[in-house]
Amino acid sequence: MKILVIGGDAAGMSAASRAKRNNPDLDVTVLEKTMDVSYSACGMPYNISDPIRDIDDLVVRQADVFRDKQGINLLTGHCVESIDPSNRTVAGMSLEGKAFQFSYDKLLIATGGSPIVPDLEGFDLSGVMALKSLDDGRKIKTYITTHNVRKVVIIGMGYIALEMCEALRSRSIDVEMVKPGPVFLPWMEEELSDAVRKEVESHQAKMHLGHQVQKIEALGKSLNVICSDLTLEGDMVLVAVGITPNSELAGHAGLDLGVEKAIAVDRRLTTSDENIYAAGDCADAYHVVTGTKTWIPLALRANRAGWAAADNISGKAVELPGVAGTAVFKVFDLEVARTGLTMDAAEKSGFEPAKVVIKTRSRAHAHPGASVIHVQMVGDKKTGRLLGVQMVGKEGVAHRINAPAVALHNQMTVAAYGQADLAYAPPFGPTWDPTLTAANQLLKRI
Amino acid sequence: MKILVIGGDAAGMSAASRAKRNNPDLDVTVLEKTMDVSYSACGMPYNISDPIRDIDDLVVRQADVFRDKQGINLLTGHCVESIDPSNRTVAGMSLEGKAFQFSYDKLLIATGGSPIVPDLEGFDLSGVMALKSLDDGRKIKTYITTHNVRKVVIIGMGYIALEMCEALRSRSIDVEMVKPGPVFLPWMEEELSDAVRKEVESHQAKMHLGHQVQKIEALGKSLNVICSDLTLEGDMVLVAVGITPNSELAGHAGLDLGVEKAIAVDRRLTTSDENIYAAGDCADAYHVVTGTKTWIPLALRANRAGWAAADNISGKAVELPGVAGTAVFKVFDLEVARTGLTMDAAEKSGFEPAKVVIKTRSRAHAHPGASVIHVQMVGDKKTGRLLGVQMVGKEGVAHRINAPAVALHNQMTVAAYGQADLAYAPPFGPTWDPTLTAANQLLKRI
Repeated sequence: MKILVIGGDAAGMSAASRAKRNNPDLDVTVLEKTMDVSYSACGMPYNISDPIRDIDDLVVRQADVFRDKQGINLLTGHCVESIDPSNRTVAGMSLEGKAFQFSYDKLLIATGGSPIVPDLEGFDLSGVMALKSLDDGRKIKTYITTHNVRKVVIIGMGYIALEMCEALRSRSIDVEMVKPGPVFLPWMEEELSDAVRKEVESHQAKMHLGHQVQKIEALGKSLNVICSDLTLEGDMVLVAVGITPNSELAGHAGLDLGVEKAIAVDRRLTTSDENIYAAGDCADAYHVVTGTKTWIPLALRANRAGWAAADNISGKAVELPGVAGTAVFKVFDLEVARTGLTMDAAEKSGFEPAKVVIKTRSRAHAHPGASVIHVQMVGDKKTGRLLGVQMVGKEGVAHRINAPAVALHNQMTVAAYGQADLAYAPPFGPTWDPTLTAANQLLKRI
Repeated sequence: MKILVIGGDAAGMSAASRAKRNNPDLDVTVLEKTMDVSYSACGMPYNISDPIRDIDDLVVRQADVFRDKQGINLLTGHCVESIDPSNRTVAGMSLEGKAFQFSYDKLLIATGGSPIVPDLEGFDLSGVMALKSLDDGRKIKTYITTHNVRKVVIIGMGYIALEMCEALRSRSIDVEMVKPGPVFLPWMEEELSDAVRKEVESHQAKMHLGHQVQKIEALGKSLNVICSDLTLEGDMVLVAVGITPNSELAGHAGLDLGVEKAIAVDRRLTTSDENIYAAGDCADAYHVVTGTKTWIPLALRANRAGWAAADNISGKAVELPGVAGTAVFKVFDLEVARTGLTMDAAEKSGFEPAKVVIKTRSRAHAHPGASVIHVQMVGDKKTGRLLGVQMVGKEGVAHRINAPAVALHNQMTVAAYGQADLAYAPPFGPTWDPTLTAANQLLKRI
């Protein structure tokens, strides 16, 4: 059987490797448009923060290992331009300018996502950067050095913007951040969001909310980010306003697109064409809380979907339950985590949500070194179900979010979660884990 | 209604407070034999490690607060000596030598546990200590100073022994540990247990396994711990070979005792007498994995059982699902955690267990500062269920254990757990959480 994979990062290479492990006789070809495969994209801010490290350290497995050890026909510099589902072929152009065509029995689309770049004047100027591919990372890192960048304007305040803010500040580069919306982290309760904002500001990054960027202008060696009532000047501009699924190929081939124009897939990762699968940031997923479709582009889901697609293609039926929307990021000395639904999302999904916001300690009573942990918990008044948790704190947040995440996979009620037997020792938390205290408090409101 | 509580620590005071919150009109009396109530017993090693801090810092709430603010009739220095279930009375003696008797409508026994002290020669010598009550902590702390203790022999190698080893070493006190069994942590896979042992030994604590202690002898200012083939000398001896439930009162009153002679209670914390409840280290509990009785004396369970007993007594029916056996301790720079069953316990409970032991990283590929995380996971071949997890590592272990703990509460299969949407960011772990990698590996064996 001929398996063709478009895209050689997390989902694509996971799938290709898994398919060959499942059945070494499968004929697996991967077409990757860049020269890079299998790298830790999420690690880029932490590499950019260190002027000495090579960004290629982030490559998890070299292309040759996939080729020689795993027998995968991995073709880099191969950009697919069209899919013909009726003839089961794809066509495109190599970086060297050679046209190519491949046929397939089963096709996996793993084209990922791309940073959104507003269609405004000056966003194509040299020094205006976005961060998604390893090559983006290379460009940013090189530009900082070659242009002796001392000040960066970041457009956007999502987690990549914040991680990059930290990375740049750790190199003593000045940072100003700007976004059009008036609310810093709209998906987060104000008390928690304020804690994050204070942390960022305490590291001398300036934040400008409620300013719509109109254009970027080059002025000598500087770049001016121009809003109606504010102009920010930097040596470099980072655009981090979100990503969008790379689903044009699929769309042009007539495949159904779903949430946020991601490629619509079922729990087996099959698209609307039974011979075509999609996985990773280009595809949608089921949400375990709502049971409906969602699009949350994250690394674990991409790897897992790659595996599941490979399993299904190679005859081992697998259904993915879906995502809980679990995510964590670090910004300076804070850990920020979430799982499940916000109040807003819960209301829109037809729940009757109630929330509680508590402030507790990262270590036991009288244990030295404790810091504050903020927890927001959302539950449903109608069913008593736990719907979501958000947390902010200096320690003990990143992994603590996983317990409520598993609870969401099991449709646990807040009451049942409140009875969970969680670990306790004084260096690691209060006797009642902060999420248990939140559950106990929330029970009074639902 | 007259509610009488015997014991004023975690379970007892939680229950008394909860009962008054539920219904301020309840007549609640607590009889505590010591002068201390409501303190963080688990915090004692971390207080003893610091010569400057007062051990009374560990008191969470002063007795007067319970009396004046909460209206609880809290009587310290009141040692109950007998319970008469047919007349619903208890009798005893106060520290001042006054006999007392109280009647009750509902009685809660929250007498806790006591350290096991072997019935051997010399275990009653001055300088031979055990650690359970705040007064034990006071005695140890004072003895170290007044006797200028430079070397301690610890009998036992459980978590209290190890926490105390760390506390003493942090004060530059020499430590030798001895136990009769040949295996360091018998409930833990050898590879994980070896990692803990190396950590302890790297902090210059000597460990002697396989030596049965025969007696302790005073020799001048020293204490000699004498085994058949080994004599250890110290300025102080700490006996930490485990604890036993304080169930004699209940036993003499004719109440049923269960696992390890703990007081047998149902899911509502009722004993074999419908007017008598028991909660905390003196009582048994259901295990959520086996569904059968177990006795695991830990702080969270004690607090939770106290609340549940109070709720049931004050007319709000609550059933506790039980414990998963989740626990964590810190020893020097290692976090050691467990939840659920070991291979051994799983076999004894009628499962057909298989296990996997993996070694992975605490941070993402190429992220600086990563250390090793060891994970053992146990699953059932017959049902595919997840049965237990153990973990050891320098970071990211303490809270990570809670995700599989919640999975155990939900009787999740290893396959379903392997699909859980857990958080990922490079500073906090690999893309696949270590417990997910363990689940993926274990799936091949069950």
